[in-house]
Amino acid sequence: MLDALKKEVCEANLELVRRGVVIYTWGNVSGIDRDAGMVVIKPSGVDYDGMKPEDMVVVDLDSGETAEGRWKPSSDTKTHLELYRAFPQIGGITHTHSINAVAFAQAGMDIPALGTTHADYFYGVIPCTRELTKAEVEEAYELNTGRVIVECIKERGIDPMAVPGIVVRNHGPFSWGKDAAASVYHAVVMDAVAEMDLKTLILNPQATIQPYVLDKHYMRKHGPKAYYGQGKERNV
Amino acid sequence: MLDALKKEVCEANLELVRRGVVIYTWGNVSGIDRDAGMVVIKPSGVDYDGMKPEDMVVVDLDSGETAEGRWKPSSDTKTHLELYRAFPQIGGITHTHSINAVAFAQAGMDIPALGTTHADYFYGVIPCTRELTKAEVEEAYELNTGRVIVECIKERGIDPMAVPGIVVRNHGPFSWGKDAAASVYHAVVMDAVAEMDLKTLILNPQATIQPYVLDKHYMRKHGPKAYYGQGKERNV
Amino acid sequence: MLDALKKEVCEANLELVRRGVVIYTWGNVSGIDRDAGMVVIKPSGVDYDGMKPEDMVVVDLDSGETAEGRWKPSSDTKTHLELYRAFPQIGGITHTHSINAVAFAQAGMDIPALGTTHADYFYGVIPCTRELTKAEVEEAYELNTGRVIVECIKERGIDPMAVPGIVVRNHGPFSWGKDAAASVYHAVVMDAVAEMDLKTLILNPQATIQPYVLDKHYMRKHGPKAYYGQGKERNV
Amino acid sequence: MLDALKKEVCEANLELVRRGVVIYTWGNVSGIDRDAGMVVIKPSGVDYDGMKPEDMVVVDLDSGETAEGRWKPSSDTKTHLELYRAFPQIGGITHTHSINAVAFAQAGMDIPALGTTHADYFYGVIPCTRELTKAEVEEAYELNTGRVIVECIKERGIDPMAVPGIVVRNHGPFSWGKDAAASVYHAVVMDAVAEMDLKTLILNPQATIQPYVLDKHYMRKHGPKAYYGQGKERNV
Repeated sequence: MLDALKKEVCEANLELVRRGVVIYTWGNVSGIDRDAGMVVIKPSGVDYDGMKPEDMVVVDLDSGETAEGRWKPSSDTKTHLELYRAFPQIGGITHTHSINAVAFAQAGMDIPALGTTHADYFYGVIPCTRELTKAEVEEAYELNTGRVIVECIKERGIDPMAVPGIVVRNHGPFSWGKDAAASVYHAVVMDAVAEMDLKTLILNPQATIQPYVLDKHYMRKHGPKAYYGQGKERNV
Repeated sequence: MLDALKKEVCEANLELVRRGVVIYTWGNVSGIDRDAGMVVIKPSGVDYDGMKPEDMVVVDLDSGETAEGRWKPSSDTKTHLELYRAFPQIGGITHTHSINAVAFAQAGMDIPALGTTHADYFYGVIPCTRELTKAEVEEAYELNTGRVIVECIKERGIDPMAVPGIVVRNHGPFSWGKDAAASVYHAVVMDAVAEMDLKTLILNPQATIQPYVLDKHYMRKHGPKAYYGQGKERNV
Repeated sequence: MLDALKKEVCEANLELVRRGVVIYTWGNVSGIDRDAGMVVIKPSGVDYDGMKPEDMVVVDLDSGETAEGRWKPSSDTKTHLELYRAFPQIGGITHTHSINAVAFAQAGMDIPALGTTHADYFYGVIPCTRELTKAEVEEAYELNTGRVIVECIKERGIDPMAVPGIVVRNHGPFSWGKDAAASVYHAVVMDAVAEMDLKTLILNPQATIQPYVLDKHYMRKHGPKAYYGQGKERNV
Repeated sequence: MLDALKKEVCEANLELVRRGVVIYTWGNVSGIDRDAGMVVIKPSGVDYDGMKPEDMVVVDLDSGETAEGRWKPSSDTKTHLELYRAFPQIGGITHTHSINAVAFAQAGMDIPALGTTHADYFYGVIPCTRELTKAEVEEAYELNTGRVIVECIKERGIDPMAVPGIVVRNHGPFSWGKDAAASVYHAVVMDAVAEMDLKTLILNPQATIQPYVLDKHYMRKHGPKAYYGQGKERNV
């Protein structure tokens, strides 16, 4: 079942490795079929070498039960499911431990909006979640990780399609998009932007950007009058 | 039309990727045919994979209209055109979001002249432009980006062929040269020099260089008595 | 003799190069056959290019004498042997001069536990040993390096299988695991974690992590109720 | 003439690129035949792509005149010659603009001896020269660069074979060794050590090393009782 989606999700997982944001098994990508109510996700702790579409695991969006697959799904599956449930616009999710985004997660800092690279994809700061409580960690860690992400986005009044990523405190980046490939793209952008920002803050801890520059760059790619790209399809 | 220039510009765009200063579609190179009054530039938002000379877009220098090409030209086309109009010596222009040069752009800092690597290609600091005003951004963003670059170069009394690059505040580097390939070369040098300078300033925030060392290095490659290289052609 | 182990140790040495944590001859991996009381280790100062299983050296665990091999064993052999003697659970050991882990060794700092990447493999800080005394260096340097590692682990009450690595003051990282491949894996993780932590401390010198997050991440991979991975074998 | 040396020097130049310490034409390696009184060096400003042994230039050690070759020799030739004249033990010389070593050159700082990686190849700090005076730069820049290197080594009482490298203030690293290949090896080590030290100083600006550790590491590889490696030949 869902052969096309499995292929897409497998390919997106392999792209993570090619883009240098994942080593070993330190990442996972999923994609959803909203009509079927099913999520396709990378298996847990399986190496990327030789990974095939048929290794992907199909999980029921509501129950979280495995519907098909010879492997156990990623240990982060419950986090993915919670995000799919909270935000119906999301079609794909990526989680990595990419070094520069993790640095912000470990520092407990939002990735600030300091330049147009950021503004081309993220309409404002990329937030860092609060810490999970002891009870949240011990009772249902992966599910609560998803809940803390959702809470952060809602409390800050963020549109998740306009800021398609977050760093989970002391953990690392999650990103999403219209499909699996878009979520990988945003994972790569987040790490590049995090590296730019780390270096910027070394040079000038007071660095800022005018809000109207953020508006302009985001809107020329994603706004109703977007003119970046070839206009045939909305940009990533 | 302009088949040789299209080939040159396409090749220069691909070189950006090989040199590691561009990922995805985050850069663009153009070249000009001064006699024809035409600029050849990369299409907007098109991937580098499989890019061919016939994908390049031909744009009229004066009107900015597309003269030939199946794609829309780079969204930064108006910035390129403004530079070609202001500085008739320029034959090619490159724009990237290379990480180290962007860090200086985001920090709002000139890339200082601290060593001979810099002096071999840039005769003095690589300036950082002022911020664009709200009106400049909203009315004609890409054109005004070009104007702010030109204004910065003229106000500082810089010869654009002696300092063939700049960082646009909160955005990133633009570089140029006698042709498209030279502008790419300068884009690569700018990022390398920016990385050297960032690391230098971490070690010693007061680092400086004697002006006579800058003079010597620049002049031995580019002055009337230049003796670096094989003497058959002016160095990049 | 020990042909399977030689192959395993040779492959682990080559993996160090592929993972980018070693250049030239700056690293060595060994593995042990506890029943035979023999350790297989990389030869000293021999290049990785074209290294073959039959180049590995077999050393007697107790006497330290070479039992087989055409080359001299790694100059760090006595350090490896001391660790194998002190900790019977260890099946493989890796030593590198990987840049980020060395930075902590040279700074005389433990690699702090700041995130879940760390916690997935190391249950607490990765310690930095004390300096060796002048007498320790002059009398039996490599042996005493092993003794100082053992002393540090015992004094801090660390379970070496739960914290499978250390940085030796002013020198660099040693790591270990159930076999040679696992020790290489931990060497790669140590360097990645060290880079994350260096960047984190630049952003926020007061960064910390809640101990219950460390517990959760370590235990979900390595505890009695571990659920990360496919459950067929203990994770690396 | 000197075909074997040309091959060796050409190969050493190409190794610079493979090791990632040189881009474009930003480096040069030479080797000397002491009996012939001739130095073989890379041509000036010629790309590494497709470089062949017959492109190497032969220069007379005493007169500095080109003895053979279709190209002009490297613009740094006079610096190389001055070092060969001052230190008869030197068989090969490398100059690069590798980023981390340049950072120390631009900061005007010695590369400190903080770890055993350093001590394995450099017996003490890698010095940074003084600035050249205006007269020294204007009159005979490349020759005086060589003289300032020699002056620095002699004033500090350094054995150039025990500390086979230096950073020239605001310029970059020069390294040397028994032959061209050894000088390249030392160029690679210098950059790695400079990166380690930069990161160490970020973590701990007061980092130091016990002198007896430096002694031990240097001597076990290079002393009269050296025991690192296979003992057949002195280590690099």
